[in-house]
Amino acid sequence: MIQAIGYAAKHSFSRLKPLSFEREEAGPNDVEIAVLFCGVCHSDVHLARNELSNTVYPCMPGHEAVGRVTTIGANVTRHQVGDIVGVGCMIESCRKCEPCEAGEENYCEGPNSWLATYNGPMVPAAMAPDSANMYGRDNTYGGYSNVLVVNQDFALRIPGGLSPAVAAPILCAGVTTYSPLRHWGVKPGNKVGVIGLGGLGHMAVKLALAMGAEVTAFTTTKEKLAEATRLGATGVLESDKEAMKALASTFHFMISTVPEKHDVDPYIPMLRRDCTLCVVGSLGKQPAFTNGEVTAHRRSLSGSAIGSIAETQEVLDFCAEHGIGPDIEVIPIQDINDAYSKIEKGDVRFRYVIDMASIAQDAEA
Amino acid sequence: MIQAIGYAAKHSFSRLKPLSFEREEAGPNDVEIAVLFCGVCHSDVHLARNELSNTVYPCMPGHEAVGRVTTIGANVTRHQVGDIVGVGCMIESCRKCEPCEAGEENYCEGPNSWLATYNGPMVPAAMAPDSANMYGRDNTYGGYSNVLVVNQDFALRIPGGLSPAVAAPILCAGVTTYSPLRHWGVKPGNKVGVIGLGGLGHMAVKLALAMGAEVTAFTTTKEKLAEATRLGATGVLESDKEAMKALASTFHFMISTVPEKHDVDPYIPMLRRDCTLCVVGSLGKQPAFTNGEVTAHRRSLSGSAIGSIAETQEVLDFCAEHGIGPDIEVIPIQDINDAYSKIEKGDVRFRYVIDMASIAQDAEA
Repeated sequence: MIQAIGYAAKHSFSRLKPLSFEREEAGPNDVEIAVLFCGVCHSDVHLARNELSNTVYPCMPGHEAVGRVTTIGANVTRHQVGDIVGVGCMIESCRKCEPCEAGEENYCEGPNSWLATYNGPMVPAAMAPDSANMYGRDNTYGGYSNVLVVNQDFALRIPGGLSPAVAAPILCAGVTTYSPLRHWGVKPGNKVGVIGLGGLGHMAVKLALAMGAEVTAFTTTKEKLAEATRLGATGVLESDKEAMKALASTFHFMISTVPEKHDVDPYIPMLRRDCTLCVVGSLGKQPAFTNGEVTAHRRSLSGSAIGSIAETQEVLDFCAEHGIGPDIEVIPIQDINDAYSKIEKGDVRFRYVIDMASIAQDAEA
Repeated sequence: MIQAIGYAAKHSFSRLKPLSFEREEAGPNDVEIAVLFCGVCHSDVHLARNELSNTVYPCMPGHEAVGRVTTIGANVTRHQVGDIVGVGCMIESCRKCEPCEAGEENYCEGPNSWLATYNGPMVPAAMAPDSANMYGRDNTYGGYSNVLVVNQDFALRIPGGLSPAVAAPILCAGVTTYSPLRHWGVKPGNKVGVIGLGGLGHMAVKLALAMGAEVTAFTTTKEKLAEATRLGATGVLESDKEAMKALASTFHFMISTVPEKHDVDPYIPMLRRDCTLCVVGSLGKQPAFTNGEVTAHRRSLSGSAIGSIAETQEVLDFCAEHGIGPDIEVIPIQDINDAYSKIEKGDVRFRYVIDMASIAQDAEA
């Protein structure tokens, strides 16, 4: 076993604190990774606080980890010791269902769906058919730790052009916005609307621009209008009814990255005929919406769950090629609880990334 | 001018009563039609009662009219005197916008959108850009009358194999369900779910079966389970939680024909990955829904508005070819107010069709 240390919450109401634990050594198909950086996702906060009512404790978040390969199993061919690799939201899937065979592990329909990098299988054993626990793990410890061990197929190559800290949030915030932009076929000249300008939203803006789209970013925060401009988008305040009305039937695709439930009625009329508003940020109950505006132009409301492993590699390569990446603020892990408070208040200028070297002081303590 | 008579409501709270009025004579591109039958649609009730807050009075409903051509204009080539033709929901569109040019007049983006067979333009002049009233009509009188005059392009050929009374509801209930079944590519072997078993629902079942799909019909009314079986579908009660759960991730397409707002959360999990639930029956606020179930399999909630003129002709021909049609109950127009009451109570076994010969007694009175 490998002696490891990370930051975890013991209960929904507790702060994250250092936790020493053991990881399994790398098996023949696994790589062991010394974590260098880990992004902080809004869903880390949701899960640490049990806001989706599915958290297993202790909860050690982190699904945007970048590190250096330190050990490889006997069968590993994809990675070498010394490689800089990334670990996103998934570390395994059933590999047998139709989505897995189609290379869409993020929609795995195996009995436990995919195995999340932290908090265990997406479908816990108690909810799975015949109480199957195909992964043998009820809980997994994520990237807020000094070491990860994962199957080689779920470790991504970080292209040389991307710094490890910048690459980290691409593993979730990047692919979660890249996948729907690709799936709904955004192409040069299209008009794309991005709702919310946080960790996901600002990546959606950068990616859509790099795909050649014209981007409008919607926010409820006046201060973020300047951010939209800085990113190359047109900023619109949701409360500006005139500006909102002027955008009727203009967008080929819209993506909402707002991490809480919110009213989509102001946005549905902005879609062109046969076009889609994809809500990726909110998983709970979305408020009532006016179906007349959906039927009137055969519009769609849809959602999308992160992205496949292939798409994660694609978005990393795409970011390196286009010279784009998330705007980040690097913090020591000891600041994680303050960071969570700021994320909850929406008081964060894009993505926090933990410098995992900082955990050394807890290890020594 | 043509002296005409029909049944109209003068206010949202009044019963439909005989109304004598004048229609314009047929212009060079128009046909004049002696109405034989007119279907009674749930939306007739909504509009007569001003339940969508857009009714112009007097309101003379009827957008499922079938009749005999009595006069044709000088330029008319599509129809001849004596032909049996149908008039559906639309009698004109802008003919210039992109959807009109693509043959999807039902999504017309002209300043007034399409001209409805009754109640005037879909976008009234007061709401149109520059208060455009491109059709010159604020109100139109529908098929609950003895005569209609429409542009030849908006009159449909009724195939010989369909009786005029049976053909009538195909002009709205038929095409409103046929269009999304085709748009979302239902094909042999697909599993299709139909929610609600009224005028639209039972047509959706028949059409999907004729397309080679396996059909499950969902209802809240125990008595309608036998109807589902009679139609060739599997009937499921929405309150039967076990049966509902067993259908998780099984449907390639679902269509909700429920004419009131209703909770779609029980149905979203029944969609396969990348599949759509199209709500055609409810135009107001649809209740809150769980977006996690949408994102988890990249499902979509969508809507669809009737169908194009080309699709209306297609569904008429399709019904004749497959020997299917709506289940109807023919009534004299004097029974229209009782029929409305029964429709409002859901106490109707499929579609009422008015035998317009009955209006003669009001004309003589």
